[in-house]
Amino acid sequence: MLLSTGGVVALAGVGGLTPLSQALAQEKAKSEAKALPAYASWKHADSLIVHSANTIETKRSAFGSGLITPLDRLFVRNNVAPPSEKIVADPDAWVVSIKGVKQPKDLTVADLKRLGLVAVPMVLQCSGNGRAYFPEKPSGTKWTVGAAGCVVFSGVPIKAVLEATGGMEPGAKYMTGTGGEEIPQGLDPNTVMVERSIPVEAIDDAILAWEINGEPIPLAHGGPLRLVVPGYTGVNNVKYIKQLAFGKEQSAASIQQNSYRMTPLGEKTNVNQESVWEMPVKSFVTSPTGEPGEEIKAGMVQIQGLAFGGMSAAKEVEVSVDGGKTWKKAAFVGPDLGKYAWRQFVVGMDLKPGKYEIASRATSQAGTVQPEERAANSHGYLNNSWRDHMLAVTVI
Amino acid sequence: MLLSTGGVVALAGVGGLTPLSQALAQEKAKSEAKALPAYASWKHADSLIVHSANTIETKRSAFGSGLITPLDRLFVRNNVAPPSEKIVADPDAWVVSIKGVKQPKDLTVADLKRLGLVAVPMVLQCSGNGRAYFPEKPSGTKWTVGAAGCVVFSGVPIKAVLEATGGMEPGAKYMTGTGGEEIPQGLDPNTVMVERSIPVEAIDDAILAWEINGEPIPLAHGGPLRLVVPGYTGVNNVKYIKQLAFGKEQSAASIQQNSYRMTPLGEKTNVNQESVWEMPVKSFVTSPTGEPGEEIKAGMVQIQGLAFGGMSAAKEVEVSVDGGKTWKKAAFVGPDLGKYAWRQFVVGMDLKPGKYEIASRATSQAGTVQPEERAANSHGYLNNSWRDHMLAVTVI
Repeated sequence: MLLSTGGVVALAGVGGLTPLSQALAQEKAKSEAKALPAYASWKHADSLIVHSANTIETKRSAFGSGLITPLDRLFVRNNVAPPSEKIVADPDAWVVSIKGVKQPKDLTVADLKRLGLVAVPMVLQCSGNGRAYFPEKPSGTKWTVGAAGCVVFSGVPIKAVLEATGGMEPGAKYMTGTGGEEIPQGLDPNTVMVERSIPVEAIDDAILAWEINGEPIPLAHGGPLRLVVPGYTGVNNVKYIKQLAFGKEQSAASIQQNSYRMTPLGEKTNVNQESVWEMPVKSFVTSPTGEPGEEIKAGMVQIQGLAFGGMSAAKEVEVSVDGGKTWKKAAFVGPDLGKYAWRQFVVGMDLKPGKYEIASRATSQAGTVQPEERAANSHGYLNNSWRDHMLAVTVI
Repeated sequence: MLLSTGGVVALAGVGGLTPLSQALAQEKAKSEAKALPAYASWKHADSLIVHSANTIETKRSAFGSGLITPLDRLFVRNNVAPPSEKIVADPDAWVVSIKGVKQPKDLTVADLKRLGLVAVPMVLQCSGNGRAYFPEKPSGTKWTVGAAGCVVFSGVPIKAVLEATGGMEPGAKYMTGTGGEEIPQGLDPNTVMVERSIPVEAIDDAILAWEINGEPIPLAHGGPLRLVVPGYTGVNNVKYIKQLAFGKEQSAASIQQNSYRMTPLGEKTNVNQESVWEMPVKSFVTSPTGEPGEEIKAGMVQIQGLAFGGMSAAKEVEVSVDGGKTWKKAAFVGPDLGKYAWRQFVVGMDLKPGKYEIASRATSQAGTVQPEERAANSHGYLNNSWRDHMLAVTVI
């Protein structure tokens, strides 16, 4: 630890990096040394930062200009180690139990494929994406921007599943998905299991998905079957889902009761605090610099980034190169893929040599403007501060 | 040859396969035995049919339900062996010469990235896709449906490149792209080089692309820089482009003069015949059967497929399960990605045990209906016959 701190101090005079940039660069250098875990060995290592076997982030510079994030560059976040690779060998045979409905049923993926098909382009983002920028240094993975991607999930609407099972039991207020992770013997399942509840109002666009980006969902992303709730943070999109239940109460699992809540600084997490469900409006710049502290050559540059509205589409993005003093409207790149997808944006700027702070600020169709400051909370969730995501750039 | 023909006859009584289905199944079995070439070794072998090192097709059953074809499942077609992998090691350094403009220039990819950015979802399809269904058995790769994919190319509009180079010289009628393939010593370059011309009217949506599906274009798909002409067949999208020239004449290269023309049956190919440029309206079914001769279980099934209009979007798709006697309108799946992209379609059908012939028929926004019969031509180009692409299915 002393050595690491010493390194930051020693670098302070070099290249004019801010202490935060340096700390992040160091964090990144450490992470890059880690190898991809076996279940994600097929991913593109150069595009990723491996924080741990269960937390893998896309580099800011690796997002590229496509509309959809390629699977081999998509982040991975598991709350518990994934089940055996065997479960994706025969996806059609996977069974999900539908409960809290008038006709409870066990349905295979093959059964589900006969009920209907939708394809939903959507942002998949870890609740803690941007945690690295919280000054309180909350525990948890120090994600910068890359615990997010825009993917296409294909599957059957939850509404069609409900139609095939007689509909929800009267009075149901929550839909609860249970993940297929193996619970180690002797542990209280509630302390380990990944079981998340969302309000039934949110199920209109939710699906049970067997494909991501046109491929059977790989184990790393929750295959053979994943609950997908567009607009909601990653944890609510339950992987390897084995049970979908409708009922009056939220799950008793710890991950629902005592985690993923907007806990005020200094307080203990409890069930009365707001659950981390919907994503707020957000944007960040990805190019031409990509990584903190990089230098770029003077002249016309195309400043690019990504913007999404959470529960409604991004309507507008502005870009600032002077740390938010003045803003210029950016253009969207490519077609609108629907309200849950992100938009790429671009704006041409003629930059003379000097130092710049490049920020972006999105506004959603719902009229919400991305804020300058993050919402303070003790676990570092839902960071959408434009200032936190700003890049310091030297133009030479 | 005799043995192969004998095999077809021997199988004729088994499973009720049509002779064509059997021939295709055999062709496929032979092809599957071939390994992926080194430059495409990162592709998903199980989703592909390797006809040769330069001709690799996506299996009909591997298209999946995503909107965009994943790169590792996308077909490959090279007219000449690709250059060394070294050319994609530093994409920004690649140089393209812009000629036939008021200010001719050599531009690097890094230079191009400063000029602008667009992202275009579009069908990329080999001119000879569907050649396997021509009864005249034209020479060339026996593609069935899989020499096609829908991808997102990102790059700079040709119009922005023209703006940066003073505009076309007066009187230019064609834009000619020259590929970076190595020409073997001692050969007349015109007989080997991949140099294609398109009418300047078609350049409005054309781009010089450095990314495909959000990644730097790999060598297999024409990286580091590819000319992309949305709506035009694959060969017009020149790989590893090293020169872009505007002028009064079409290229003198053999691939422009004496190839890729709609040659009437029995005639010799010549420059007066129509060049293979624009793609016609087309669709085909991909699921639930996928592969010819497969059996499916009775009950409700979701019949899926892909449809595109060529130069305008697909407006409507109908599906028939009785070989085209009656038709039912299908629904589109997911958002419209623009006029050059394909649409997935789906229709639920309750199928009793029996034999079915499943076909799809698309209509473009321009009002053109996919025809029952292909346009006869001696090289097997532009097959968009709905009958040729029909699947014989046994429901049990």
